[in-house]
Amino acid sequence: MPYFDNNATTPLLEAAEEAYMLASRDHWQNPSSPYRSAARARNLFDDDREWLAGLMGCPVEAIVFNSGATEGNNAVFNYLAGKHSSRARVVVSTIEHPSVLEPARAAFPDRVDYIPVLPSGISDLSVLAKLLKNPDIVLVSLMAANNESGVLQPWRKCLKMCRQKGVPFHTDASQWLGKMPSDGLGECDYVTACAHKFGGPKGVGFDIINQRETSFRSQLGGLHERGHRAGTENFPGIRSMVAALKYLYENLDRTLAEQEVRRNIFEKTLCQQIPGMRIIGSSDERLWNTVYLVMPGFANTRWVSLLDKRGFTVSTGSACASGTEGPSHVLAAMGIESQEAHRILRISGHWDTSSAAWNGLNAAFVEVWEELNRPKSSARETMVISV
Amino acid sequence: MPYFDNNATTPLLEAAEEAYMLASRDHWQNPSSPYRSAARARNLFDDDREWLAGLMGCPVEAIVFNSGATEGNNAVFNYLAGKHSSRARVVVSTIEHPSVLEPARAAFPDRVDYIPVLPSGISDLSVLAKLLKNPDIVLVSLMAANNESGVLQPWRKCLKMCRQKGVPFHTDASQWLGKMPSDGLGECDYVTACAHKFGGPKGVGFDIINQRETSFRSQLGGLHERGHRAGTENFPGIRSMVAALKYLYENLDRTLAEQEVRRNIFEKTLCQQIPGMRIIGSSDERLWNTVYLVMPGFANTRWVSLLDKRGFTVSTGSACASGTEGPSHVLAAMGIESQEAHRILRISGHWDTSSAAWNGLNAAFVEVWEELNRPKSSARETMVISV
Repeated sequence: MPYFDNNATTPLLEAAEEAYMLASRDHWQNPSSPYRSAARARNLFDDDREWLAGLMGCPVEAIVFNSGATEGNNAVFNYLAGKHSSRARVVVSTIEHPSVLEPARAAFPDRVDYIPVLPSGISDLSVLAKLLKNPDIVLVSLMAANNESGVLQPWRKCLKMCRQKGVPFHTDASQWLGKMPSDGLGECDYVTACAHKFGGPKGVGFDIINQRETSFRSQLGGLHERGHRAGTENFPGIRSMVAALKYLYENLDRTLAEQEVRRNIFEKTLCQQIPGMRIIGSSDERLWNTVYLVMPGFANTRWVSLLDKRGFTVSTGSACASGTEGPSHVLAAMGIESQEAHRILRISGHWDTSSAAWNGLNAAFVEVWEELNRPKSSARETMVISV
Repeated sequence: MPYFDNNATTPLLEAAEEAYMLASRDHWQNPSSPYRSAARARNLFDDDREWLAGLMGCPVEAIVFNSGATEGNNAVFNYLAGKHSSRARVVVSTIEHPSVLEPARAAFPDRVDYIPVLPSGISDLSVLAKLLKNPDIVLVSLMAANNESGVLQPWRKCLKMCRQKGVPFHTDASQWLGKMPSDGLGECDYVTACAHKFGGPKGVGFDIINQRETSFRSQLGGLHERGHRAGTENFPGIRSMVAALKYLYENLDRTLAEQEVRRNIFEKTLCQQIPGMRIIGSSDERLWNTVYLVMPGFANTRWVSLLDKRGFTVSTGSACASGTEGPSHVLAAMGIESQEAHRILRISGHWDTSSAAWNGLNAAFVEVWEELNRPKSSARETMVISV
């Protein structure tokens, strides 16, 4: 069944499933324990950490495994709030994930400044230049790619601006990692990543933290992760996450070559099929898997439901926001009005989404569009309306 | 290979592995998403929550799934520190896991009172009666069973004493759950539990929180777990954890009937085989799987290593402490001196440990004891000593 909501969560990749099962069967011992089977788990664990550090381009010691991006983002802001005085301020973009926005506001109450976003969906760094003049800024946080629009954010430029001012930079790379080249991420002071966004298991992720931050603590109560994060290491989960990244980065060139073309054909075809439809962020660089649409009519919930009945899974936006009333904060930040926001659909493909699946989605969209526009004259429709 | 360190971590039970794989293959969608496959995951998720609430004897709404006991314990203390004034104090036992002790001390600096432990390993509640006279106490925390000695703690009596004074009570049930009847746990104001201690996957656990605590937050950034813990739910992990508990509680009567007898035979036999050996907590009620020994001679690290070479995995103590220098805080709290502490061994069986495995461990202990006592006259031993 063609699943087009991979920015919400992904199925476990085959390589990741196999790695999970093997580690779970053979190397489930506590890596901190003093016997040989635990030492074997520890050795494999060290190998994985080393491989990941190589991928990210950071020191091995900079990686702190955790339970995912929400923990990772919370930990960064809580740590910095504890480290700095009550004057300290942070800068975040208005389109960050709630797991950045909420911890930032809780840890730095009334001391959060915002990088706004242009209507295209890209963050406006001209504002950052002004904000960075304030010497109280202790962190700038800009996500690498937006989870709703897929628009790539200028995090590399942002890092450079922060470096010039000596201000630490954090990027939530949850949507970037696994989909885009990892170059440069390891140079950031703090990076957050999450396995289930790239075909790894749920409940696993990691932070990269600046090596100078010896007192960084994500959870207290043990010397795991060199004291940075207490709790028995989820080695099967970590091994599975690393296996997913190995698979994806071995195949990245093919993914980049194939998938963006398929997505672009889908968009072009759909624009011809459904007049009046608008693609958000189409003028910017975007993730190769994401399509963010404003439909010309009908509520997005109806679109989702009717496409679902045809076997195609798309979303009204981010899963964390979809339980709530009203449009997402990302749409609001982009200046998209409430009426239009209720016609938003997010489509996010997989690394292995075939041309046939994209074509099928095209056809399903046309069918639903026709169904929605059909005059409600049949007995059945009338009956439904009269209920 | 007979593994006797189940208090550190357990292998994934077959039922738990199967549940993980099935959920991971069929119900990996984000349960918050607005399509039918996600709704099916949500329904199963709700079923699991309901079953668990039934087991624990608490309202469905009291359960907050998380990444494990370390997160769970951190969350309880951090939440209470944020809720109460800077005068507020907490009471914890001296033999709590570091994931209770460290967050308590960090969240309530210089405002932690201690329930001491008797030499037998049981907490001394006569001291608690005095501590509870202080109106600034906002929480009492006593683990259900100790991870090192296996001694069952008087948490039910402690709960009763707290109720009489209107003070909330927390128990870290990480070592209790899955091994002992769950009755009464759901009546505590806060409970912490951890899947990998009872044959579930690593990186999964839950808190029970008092229903009145609407502002309890383990992680910020989304409305998951009714706002108590943000982050995409690790449904495969949760389903696997619940499957482990279902299996263990279906077989609890058999486990209790068989395993304690086997452990007791092992202890009795070993006492006869190795004179001068002492069993800690043997006069108290203990977990049926745990043996905490003071050996009559030789460093525990040598015992662990020589038993390991014979295929038997035992531990020098808790895995979180075994990387550190010096005896554990639990031994220190019990008044066991440093010299004796270095001869401590912890043996912790599994729900399925056979009589043959316990007998094998007996035989291995005797072999190691003989080897350690053998006069060091061989060329090889002399060489090692002279190096």
